[in-house]
Amino acid sequence: MAGPYTVAAICGSLRRDSWNRKLMNAAIARAPAALAIAEVPIGDLPLFNEDLERDPWPDAVLAAGAALRAADAVLVVTPEYNASVPGPLKNALDWLSRKTSAGPAPMNGKPVALIGATPGLMGTARAQAQVRQALQNLSLPVLPGPNVFVTQAATRFDDSGALTDEMTLKMLDTLLERFVNWIERNRVGG
Amino acid sequence: MAGPYTVAAICGSLRRDSWNRKLMNAAIARAPAALAIAEVPIGDLPLFNEDLERDPWPDAVLAAGAALRAADAVLVVTPEYNASVPGPLKNALDWLSRKTSAGPAPMNGKPVALIGATPGLMGTARAQAQVRQALQNLSLPVLPGPNVFVTQAATRFDDSGALTDEMTLKMLDTLLERFVNWIERNRVGG
Amino acid sequence: MAGPYTVAAICGSLRRDSWNRKLMNAAIARAPAALAIAEVPIGDLPLFNEDLERDPWPDAVLAAGAALRAADAVLVVTPEYNASVPGPLKNALDWLSRKTSAGPAPMNGKPVALIGATPGLMGTARAQAQVRQALQNLSLPVLPGPNVFVTQAATRFDDSGALTDEMTLKMLDTLLERFVNWIERNRVGG
Amino acid sequence: MAGPYTVAAICGSLRRDSWNRKLMNAAIARAPAALAIAEVPIGDLPLFNEDLERDPWPDAVLAAGAALRAADAVLVVTPEYNASVPGPLKNALDWLSRKTSAGPAPMNGKPVALIGATPGLMGTARAQAQVRQALQNLSLPVLPGPNVFVTQAATRFDDSGALTDEMTLKMLDTLLERFVNWIERNRVGG
Repeated sequence: MAGPYTVAAICGSLRRDSWNRKLMNAAIARAPAALAIAEVPIGDLPLFNEDLERDPWPDAVLAAGAALRAADAVLVVTPEYNASVPGPLKNALDWLSRKTSAGPAPMNGKPVALIGATPGLMGTARAQAQVRQALQNLSLPVLPGPNVFVTQAATRFDDSGALTDEMTLKMLDTLLERFVNWIERNRVGG
Repeated sequence: MAGPYTVAAICGSLRRDSWNRKLMNAAIARAPAALAIAEVPIGDLPLFNEDLERDPWPDAVLAAGAALRAADAVLVVTPEYNASVPGPLKNALDWLSRKTSAGPAPMNGKPVALIGATPGLMGTARAQAQVRQALQNLSLPVLPGPNVFVTQAATRFDDSGALTDEMTLKMLDTLLERFVNWIERNRVGG
Repeated sequence: MAGPYTVAAICGSLRRDSWNRKLMNAAIARAPAALAIAEVPIGDLPLFNEDLERDPWPDAVLAAGAALRAADAVLVVTPEYNASVPGPLKNALDWLSRKTSAGPAPMNGKPVALIGATPGLMGTARAQAQVRQALQNLSLPVLPGPNVFVTQAATRFDDSGALTDEMTLKMLDTLLERFVNWIERNRVGG
Repeated sequence: MAGPYTVAAICGSLRRDSWNRKLMNAAIARAPAALAIAEVPIGDLPLFNEDLERDPWPDAVLAAGAALRAADAVLVVTPEYNASVPGPLKNALDWLSRKTSAGPAPMNGKPVALIGATPGLMGTARAQAQVRQALQNLSLPVLPGPNVFVTQAATRFDDSGALTDEMTLKMLDTLLERFVNWIERNRVGG
């Protein structure tokens, strides 16, 4: 059997009670046996600035980078702000695509999967497309589908924050299952 | 005669010696009489987080917002990171598209123009396209052209950081001239 | 009073009973007094091929080009195929952005507005974004908003094909009203 | 050893002497032993129209579909028109993503690689991004990199139309080598 693979989850919303945090937690909770998903927080990263790329590198960049490097794959959980990628998420990807004093670019070669939620009807289709454009340019293997575009998020979770919508659960499970196979095939050395 | 209009310039690169900062400075220096361009710094903004949207709002958000609101128009100067919009720039746009405790969304109704520079051949075509997608969704009138895509930036400036490339100067001047007319036609109350 | 302005409508779906054709017909029917909207058919255009750009140009290209040139503005009505711009629509835009033996590029300088409908939830957000990217590169002034993204099209029209959904009618009317003002401000010579 | 795999090449330019046709021919000529690349012409396809999706289907659609279905993978060779995907190429992808009277959607499950050439500096970066968006939505595994963006095409080929630029040859060879491995890992049943 494949794995288990460690997956670093990056949540593009910094709000404590965000729908995307709840969606990330659902992915963590429902991960199949072959995946161990854990969050790598990005809220303490400074705004990307090449002038900070010198010893000592910012602690938060080194910490997030080390956590990413140690993972086999990455799960990006993204909201959509202004029909596009959230600033804090892009900021994290900009840092994590740079080699640091501690080693090569943390994202290097990592298989990636994307999921996201919006209060409205778009379900992060446009934000995910922009994240894909950035990751493609890094030559990363991003799981092509299924699209997990969680629409009308307020109707998909219960009061405790648990994902309860049947259709969404099914899509999420399908994505996670395919992600195992995708990591197996496309990881470095795979 | 139209104007003079005040233009808030936002530079997407935080690096002190960035090509985009030099490009912004060239725009400031060459502004026609009808435009007064001044930078609104974005490097002190926190990462966007809805949990911070309560009294007291972060000082840096209120300060940048006030400067934007006071301007007639906005000039976005953007590098391109990972074939897409820079995180710090998107972070600023995400904040500045939200109404604050001090008033309506600072970007509201502002005519916008875009310029950008890269060390390589792309000249920020893809970053500008993503910025346009965000601004369009805010229903803002963004100057359609000309494209100011400054390629191979290291060859366009002199040692003092001044823009010296003839073709680039000409394109920049053309954009600034058209921007005057664009602001005149498309500003709120215009 | 402004206008009346003539508007060439291009429908990206060639299917006779398409939702987008019905949407275009609704725009034609509800046009304010300052707009006269009429379709310019694109179904007879050959596939774009530079080898055909010589005398005699294809009749269908010359005919569509003449109709566009005679119009003050353009309304693009687009479905979304494969999360992106429909081939037949892009084919028409590729032809109509070229100067022909009969004169300058037919799209030159035309103010444009976009609307679109899908059976599902996306409402052509991604197709419209791609159309905008093409038109921006032509330096055309495209109405920034409101977004007319008609979702779940089957629920918005009656059996006769008339648009009956209140919210959609309201958005369409708002767009058409703003388009009058947009044409007034941004047309060549305006 | 893997393969040999058959690869259907689709050229987005219909012009006989196009740079992209020459680039496609270079790929055919330099294909490693594990790849057999052959063109599937798209110039005879009608404009996409759902009303034509009934018996008898257009001959050209059935012919292109059969050729695609018989291939293990697809190589898309694209120019860039108006900063975006060419109409004729998108038209082909729209047809080939539909199931026909002769069987499932011809593109189904095919690994894809992209290359492209422009006379100017963009090298089809924006056209390829749009093609990727369409193929991603079909859940197809598209080779993430390297980017083969052939810029200033007139300087890369000799008078006979052969690709002679060393850097471009190297990038093309790298892409073709990686494509073999990509097909091996990501084809249906792979």
